[in-house]
Amino acid sequence: MPLDEALIDSIDARMAGLMAASEHAPLLYHMMRYHLGWLDEQLRPAHFHPGKRIRPRLCFLTCAATGAQPERAAAPATAVELVHNFSLVHDDIQDRSHTRRHRRTVWDLWGEAQAINAGDGLLVLAQLALTEDESTAPHRQVRALRMLNNACLLLCEGQCLDLDFERRPAVTHDEYYAMIERKTGALLEACCTLGALYGEADEPTIAAYARFGKYLGLAFQAQDDYLGIWGDPKETGKPAADDIVSKKKALPLVRLLEVSEGSDRVRLDGIVSRPGNASPDETAEIMAIMDRYQTVEFIASEVDRNTQIALEALGSAHPAPEWHEELASLCRKLTIRRS
Amino acid sequence: MPLDEALIDSIDARMAGLMAASEHAPLLYHMMRYHLGWLDEQLRPAHFHPGKRIRPRLCFLTCAATGAQPERAAAPATAVELVHNFSLVHDDIQDRSHTRRHRRTVWDLWGEAQAINAGDGLLVLAQLALTEDESTAPHRQVRALRMLNNACLLLCEGQCLDLDFERRPAVTHDEYYAMIERKTGALLEACCTLGALYGEADEPTIAAYARFGKYLGLAFQAQDDYLGIWGDPKETGKPAADDIVSKKKALPLVRLLEVSEGSDRVRLDGIVSRPGNASPDETAEIMAIMDRYQTVEFIASEVDRNTQIALEALGSAHPAPEWHEELASLCRKLTIRRS
Repeated sequence: MPLDEALIDSIDARMAGLMAASEHAPLLYHMMRYHLGWLDEQLRPAHFHPGKRIRPRLCFLTCAATGAQPERAAAPATAVELVHNFSLVHDDIQDRSHTRRHRRTVWDLWGEAQAINAGDGLLVLAQLALTEDESTAPHRQVRALRMLNNACLLLCEGQCLDLDFERRPAVTHDEYYAMIERKTGALLEACCTLGALYGEADEPTIAAYARFGKYLGLAFQAQDDYLGIWGDPKETGKPAADDIVSKKKALPLVRLLEVSEGSDRVRLDGIVSRPGNASPDETAEIMAIMDRYQTVEFIASEVDRNTQIALEALGSAHPAPEWHEELASLCRKLTIRRS
Repeated sequence: MPLDEALIDSIDARMAGLMAASEHAPLLYHMMRYHLGWLDEQLRPAHFHPGKRIRPRLCFLTCAATGAQPERAAAPATAVELVHNFSLVHDDIQDRSHTRRHRRTVWDLWGEAQAINAGDGLLVLAQLALTEDESTAPHRQVRALRMLNNACLLLCEGQCLDLDFERRPAVTHDEYYAMIERKTGALLEACCTLGALYGEADEPTIAAYARFGKYLGLAFQAQDDYLGIWGDPKETGKPAADDIVSKKKALPLVRLLEVSEGSDRVRLDGIVSRPGNASPDETAEIMAIMDRYQTVEFIASEVDRNTQIALEALGSAHPAPEWHEELASLCRKLTIRRS
């Protein structure tokens, strides 16, 4: 059964309601609204595509799958979307990204200092999304806030590791997974546990959905790392082989730095250790080394492995059949190779 | 009755408990511990002075003044100290401050990108300080989180305004107060409302303490603005006339830009509108104009006016007599001219 798209859209009204714009500090909310695609650069009302809304979608679907009305999860669905956007605004500053979804980033428009405020404000609004919800019992609100903030702390840890990886010559497979478990897995896990919590599921069911969300996150990230090199620039909005050019310590390069040998390894170390972007020739060289070590096949097997664990966990949560298929289909959609 | 200093110190253990250092992302917690003065630059254990701890102190004292045991407020006292430190870490990035309390700032040591993570993490820990508190009823925890996050949102608004003021030629008295109500007043107000809430005070009492905290904050900020120009460098840790050199739109300059006339006004506009710091000659000129318009006397009257409102509000909260004197004395200590 497909989720009512009006439900996904309803979180916009909830987010807007939380931004009861202060007469004295409109800029803070202008930045947030711009980032969410509700305003253009001239601050005129706009409707830019808000992204896939994976996180609120997962939250609503998990709630429905426990047998409750999906709209019960409106507050946590809003909160996870706000947390996701907080992390995007700060990530863009940290990564020096000038565009996101083909639009200038908040820091690119208003400077780093103000963009830090915009991200901070979104994180605070996420908290208020959960506390301003009169329809939920206080003990459940407190548990939800604990779950959400534990995920936020892991998110900070993951971002800290990701930035730290940039200045290191190599990163192991285990270190890479420790990073993405935090940076991507933790919030997707929280989406599912919060959905199940607001559906009033029992503890084993909440735990099964937690596992589903976490491994869905790992599969999704591995897939995203694939797209960062072999994705279609028209779909990703990034140049071809972008993660190779920037020498990003994503799964393909992490893998290659572990398995490559001899002259391949020497060449790779030489290119990666030099600061700055890879030249077109260097990029072609790394792509050729990736081919020699079947890196695409390796990433595909990692996506499949994590997807399998996610789908098994989903089955063990005994979701209502009409929503089981919807969740499994979302999982497949996020992890099937497109390029 | 003086507050047991062991109680103030106990929030260190609470903060440390929340930073259950992750094996995989120690850097995040190193930065936090360094900022809090528990580690030196080489990450060796240290005990740097943690500051006056005004916010947890106010929280404990207000709780005690309602007739409850002060230690009941340990969770919110920890939360407000974490929020305060989150804002310091991000402010230092935004203001490009290289030192704080005679030590290098987090961003100066680890770079802006990682310092953003450290601040984010401290804000998240503040939330966890309130949710990980089993001894408080859930409905009270939710209300506390709402109060704290409303204050955090105002803090973001205040910081947004403060940064925005820098690029404006002038700021009105009302705009200045709208900014410090948010940047300084809101969190001190939250310290007092949270203390009263955890002391289980009735609504009129909570409202009276809110007013006390807010006006204490305004008086404290006006006093801080005084010290930013006329304070003793040995006590403030900043160079003499620092806020004049940096042309900070603090109360003295805001006042002068409103009341100065003729050639004084022309000269002032000329110096302030030019980017960059004021030269020693320009600084001396501005100081002379400040003298001509009795700026010190004006700031003193603003400190006194706000202190009076704070002390009257404190009286109307009917605090237990032994704690009334302690709160009034803290208020006076924060607002009496030292230079």
